[in-house]
Parts: sequence; C-alpha cells; structure tokens
Amino acid sequence: MSTIVIKIGGGRGIDPCANMDEVAGLVEDGHRVIVVHGGSHETNVLAEALGHPPKTITSASGRQSRRTDRQTLEIFTMAYCGKVNKAVVERLRTAGVDAVGLSGLDAGIWIGSRKNAIRAVEDGRTVIIRDDLSGRVESVDADFLNLLLDAGRVPVLTPPAGTPDGIAINVDADRAAAATAASIGADELLLLSNVVGVLRDTEDENSCIPQVCSESFGEAEHAAQGRMKNKVQAAREAIERGVSRVVIGSAQGPSAIQRAREGAGTVFAQGALT
Amino acid sequence: MSTIVIKIGGGRGIDPCANMDEVAGLVEDGHRVIVVHGGSHETNVLAEALGHPPKTITSASGRQSRRTDRQTLEIFTMAYCGKVNKAVVERLRTAGVDAVGLSGLDAGIWIGSRKNAIRAVEDGRTVIIRDDLSGRVESVDADFLNLLLDAGRVPVLTPPAGTPDGIAINVDADRAAAATAASIGADELLLLSNVVGVLRDTEDENSCIPQVCSESFGEAEHAAQGRMKNKVQAAREAIERGVSRVVIGSAQGPSAIQRAREGAGTVFAQGALT
Repeated sequence: MSTIVIKIGGGRGIDPCANMDEVAGLVEDGHRVIVVHGGSHETNVLAEALGHPPKTITSASGRQSRRTDRQTLEIFTMAYCGKVNKAVVERLRTAGVDAVGLSGLDAGIWIGSRKNAIRAVEDGRTVIIRDDLSGRVESVDADFLNLLLDAGRVPVLTPPAGTPDGIAINVDADRAAAATAASIGADELLLLSNVVGVLRDTEDENSCIPQVCSESFGEAEHAAQGRMKNKVQAAREAIERGVSRVVIGSAQGPSAIQRAREGAGTVFAQGALT
Repeated sequence: MSTIVIKIGGGRGIDPCANMDEVAGLVEDGHRVIVVHGGSHETNVLAEALGHPPKTITSASGRQSRRTDRQTLEIFTMAYCGKVNKAVVERLRTAGVDAVGLSGLDAGIWIGSRKNAIRAVEDGRTVIIRDDLSGRVESVDADFLNLLLDAGRVPVLTPPAGTPDGIAINVDADRAAAATAASIGADELLLLSNVVGVLRDTEDENSCIPQVCSESFGEAEHAAQGRMKNKVQAAREAIERGVSRVVIGSAQGPSAIQRAREGAGTVFAQGALT
C-alpha cells in the first residue's frame, strides 16, 4: 500500500470532481491518499462576476502569479474553499470516502511566509508591490494529516495557507502539494492538470518529455513555460525531499489517475535524478 | 473548565470575527470551545450579486427557511464555508488559537436526512417542493470533534451538513449547534445573534424573557417569531438532551460572550425546566 498525494489543477476545463471515483478506488484498495486541488478558473469567473477582475503579476524572471489583494483573497477563499472544496468533498462522500475538506490555513496545516515586497514588471516598468497576500509553504503539519489518515479520513486540501501569525496567504498549490508529499513521506505525487506533461514545444502535445533524470532536469526546467514552471519546480522539490516518484500529467479522461500512475505524462523518479 | 458551544449568527449587522477575541480568552483559560457560525446575510449579498436572488420558503406552520436549489447550495457554500468560515479561522489564528474550519459535511460531522417533499405556501396556495437540498441534523460525530479538541484544536463549524449518502444539505445552524452541544456533553450553549433574546413583544427590546423554566417554555415558544422559533426549538433540544444551560442573546458589543454567560438574554437552565 502506498501513500499518494494527488493534486488536481483548477484551470479551465478541469473538474476535479471527475477524478474522485478513481480516488475512491485507491482508498478502497487501502492506499493512504491526500487530495490537493486548485480553483483558479472558478476564482477568475467569480472575480469577473463580482466586478473585481483578476490581475496577474509578472516577476522580473517571467514567473506569473495572481495579484492577491484583500478583496481577491475573499473571492479566492469563496471559490477554492467554498465552491470547489465542498464539491470535491461531496463527490468523495457520495462515493463512500470519508473525506474532510480543509484549507492549508486550517489547523496550521500549511505555514509559510508572506512576500513582503514583490518586484513586478508592469508595462515594461519595475514596480514594488507591498500589500500582496501571497507567499510560499515552508512547513506542513504532517502530524495533523497523519492523525486524519490514521482515523480513516481522506484530507482534501486547498489554498490558502497561513503565515506563522495566522494571516491567510495565497500559495501555489503544486508546490504546496509537493511540500505535503515530502512531509508525510509519500511514495508518489501526481500533479494533474489540463496539460499532458512537460512539453519540449508548448504548441505540440506530442513533444512531451516522458522521463526526467538528472541529465534532463535542466531541459525540463528550460522547456517549462508559464504555470508549468511551478509544476517542474514542485516536482524537483518533492524528489529532492525524498518522494520516490512524481508525475506531471493530464487530469482529463476516465482513467487519468491510473494512466498517470502508469507513467503517462512526464515522470520524475528518485533514482533517475541522483 | 467547561465545554462551551458558541454559535454566532450570520444575520445582517453581525460579524462573527468580532467575537473571536473573547473566544481566544476562553480557550486561553482552558475551556473546550467549539464555534458554530452562520452566513445568511453574506449568502444573500452574494446571491444578489450573482443574479440568483434568495427565495424564502414559508411552511404551513409559518416557519421560514431558505429555498436551496443546487445553484443556491453552491452560493451558500461559497459564503458559509469560503468567506465567513475562513475569515473566522483567520481571526482566531491571528489571536493565537489553533482553529480548524470545517463544514458539517466534512468528515461526516453533521449527518441528517434531506426533506423529500416540503409543503410550502406560495401566494396563499400550498405547493410541494421536491428538489430542495435542505434537512435537519440527526447525528453528530462527537468522536471526531473530541479528536480535534483533545489535540488542542478549536473546531469552527458551519453548514452544510451531509446526508448518510454524502449529499450536502442546508441545515439550520442553531439546531445543528444544539445537536453538537448535546453530543459532546457541553456544559453551555450560547446562541448569539442580532437580537437580545426572546422578546414577549418583538417591537420592544425591553420585553426580553430573562429566564425560561418549565412553566414559561410555552410562553417562550409562543412569543418567538420568524428565525427565533428555530432558536427556541434549538434551546429546548439542547436542554432536553442534557446541556445544562442555553443562552439566547446578543452577539453585539465588546463583551457579548461574557455578558451572555452572565445571563444577559434569555437563559434556559436544565434545573428550571424539570
């Protein structure tokens, strides 16, 4: 029996509920499973509907993230913790799984520091943003997650995380899933979304890099564009912290989880990197 | 040290976050505390903003409840579980309390049956509503709540509950709080909202019934109008199931919890009813 962390993205076209029957099967087979999900598309839709349209911050290095002011954080928690999390929990419970939905803020599951000042590029100019409520997960309360798992519960986790002082912060869910997998000593981490893997050419779905080893890590990092940069970094962090196997793959189709576990997508393996 | 369930209403003019410093004080003093909160006003605001305005069902006996179709349930979870719950958890965590926010659906904390057919009165005619996603809490997983409390966590609970089959249902949060208090053997249940207590005359805040004993229970039930009917019923259910003391009082003002514990509002006491 394995311990598996399954992260389902929240991008357009992905419904994490659709993957929950497969999760139920894994739980039934006796695996210890933690589900992590995103909610970015639902957040964008809600933000537009509420007249506070989403904004993206582009860092000097070209990495993109959501501009998270206080109002955005409220919309964010409504979409991630309210709409998506409870829908996923409901779907798991109707499939007979004793799911418990939690944000990383709850019980201090995900603790991280807030970015004090973000250097961002706006219209070619560098600006400093000081009030952004975002950061990065630095520690995971594995004891609490194990308490739930030992009691037969399946945690369904989603951002936000919290600072040590208790402030809610938007964090990247892929890297949070990686930190979670590492902290509980997971055997596998699946990062599933609306892309089939790390592509050499983002225009060509047939250019997926099948396996990443120490020689090809640089290639994967170089090939990754946009959101994929975070996934590759998450994979690296998980592997470096002892997770045996990470797969970046597609969440779409009826057996998406099984296919990813069988190696569809881009596979990062512990041995291959060292 | 007492076990105290504190329910803060979600009506207009109530911000449950404002009561959390007092909750932190109780936790610091060593009490076992569970917070339950509503979110009806936030749900109404969000429903209006999203173009799906709230509707009320009036039963033949005059009791009012929210019409909860599937879209309303989504809006409901966004407001209750997303916006209000995470705001309350954040406020508690910034006050040093190890809060964990959960809906009653999560981990099967609140299980109840869905109303199959609701007889409602619309424009003087009786209609049957069959697709409403609402019901009543019938069992509480006290073991899970005690697991959290024993681990030093403070549960922050909110609707929806779940059916035995795992479907999310809208439930009355006052009666859910009463069921919670009874199941964990709480010493006190506080039902705090934007009213000062059970009023003999709803137009006169000075007509608050101070104490309810067996002789005056009928009077309290008769006097209660609208939402207050549920609170009085919740108080009766808690007292009948062994909770020593229930106070229906105001959530407003800097020491609202302390004042309610000292008897401000309408006090239902175990001894006085028998």
